[in-house]
Amino acid sequence: MAKSNGISMSVIRRLPRYYRFLTELHSEGVLKISSTNLASIMNVTASQVRQDLNCFGGFGHQGYGYCVEDLKNEIENILGLNNSYQAVLLGAGNLGKAVARHINFSERGFQLTAIFDRDPEKIGTELGGIIIKNDNEIYEYCRQNKTDAVFLCIPKNSVENVIDKLYELGIRNFWNFSHYDIAKVYPDTVVENVHMSDSLMTLCYRINERQK
Amino acid sequence: MAKSNGISMSVIRRLPRYYRFLTELHSEGVLKISSTNLASIMNVTASQVRQDLNCFGGFGHQGYGYCVEDLKNEIENILGLNNSYQAVLLGAGNLGKAVARHINFSERGFQLTAIFDRDPEKIGTELGGIIIKNDNEIYEYCRQNKTDAVFLCIPKNSVENVIDKLYELGIRNFWNFSHYDIAKVYPDTVVENVHMSDSLMTLCYRINERQK
Repeated sequence: MAKSNGISMSVIRRLPRYYRFLTELHSEGVLKISSTNLASIMNVTASQVRQDLNCFGGFGHQGYGYCVEDLKNEIENILGLNNSYQAVLLGAGNLGKAVARHINFSERGFQLTAIFDRDPEKIGTELGGIIIKNDNEIYEYCRQNKTDAVFLCIPKNSVENVIDKLYELGIRNFWNFSHYDIAKVYPDTVVENVHMSDSLMTLCYRINERQK
Repeated sequence: MAKSNGISMSVIRRLPRYYRFLTELHSEGVLKISSTNLASIMNVTASQVRQDLNCFGGFGHQGYGYCVEDLKNEIENILGLNNSYQAVLLGAGNLGKAVARHINFSERGFQLTAIFDRDPEKIGTELGGIIIKNDNEIYEYCRQNKTDAVFLCIPKNSVENVIDKLYELGIRNFWNFSHYDIAKVYPDTVVENVHMSDSLMTLCYRINERQK
């Protein structure tokens, strides 16, 4: 299959959505889908669907559409969801708890191996099947255990305090819920930011526009 | 100023980031910034910055750059953050708690007026200064109180159970943390989705790509 080198991030960012919808269709027993119908589910044009999937080699068959299971499996491969990247979570506050409890890591290419927090009341308690450790142990943990990614569910100023040391330890991949701009300080890192308040501002804008 | 009609969503989605960075610069006492420097902070090209801001009328001065405070205020106006849209939160689990406690609603154009949950242990307790109500009261609440938006921090199947009634009550704006595809069922709604697991899948893809 064609490699995805040079694929734009906007195409990449649509892949998880394709994957989610195809997984649903597959579980509903749907065997095939036209690019028009897939486009309608994705809320993009059929031409966009064909263009997106062509980036990775194209999987459609003229006059047939896409085989749901094959396409789902292909996108799973492209995303690399069969990986089991070792990740640790820093921060077991409400957000960290939501992440640890509700995200299906193994189906997203990850395995959560440890959780760290600074709150003495949380340390030693269990979260998502993992005993929370003291956050000052995270460096030693990362030294002794292969750690592919760190999930940061701590505030911006706390990220500022830990990021240099994590970087020194060789950590290059971050799932970042804070507003600390890791990629600006360390351009050679891979950072996925989840900025909830940006999303809320966008909602505000769109409500305004609707009312004009 | 030029209205933002017909502005692409990718430009819109960058505005909250501009706003965040400009707010920071402003609080650090920075008075002006060149499009090159703003581009570097935003991790886009200087030409992209000029193009983005030109969509709304353009605020730069040749040879000077942008006045940080003016540009921040302009984007604040464009986003409509001085609004106080009345919103209610459905779901006071970990995610709902994180949202209620950590999002600065008033600076994002919203006011959180009520929180609903079905857990008897949560009902009657306080969250972010608001007493949690029984979730079966949400419809009556929305009938009696102007409700501009509902924030959905409940699972997909729970959204499925409430969405028709909320729509019937005239609610058209949703901040949606579930995987339920509201806009597909009700195309005339404004929905901002926060799909954390999509972000995690993108991280997985990018780690793969890095290792190739």
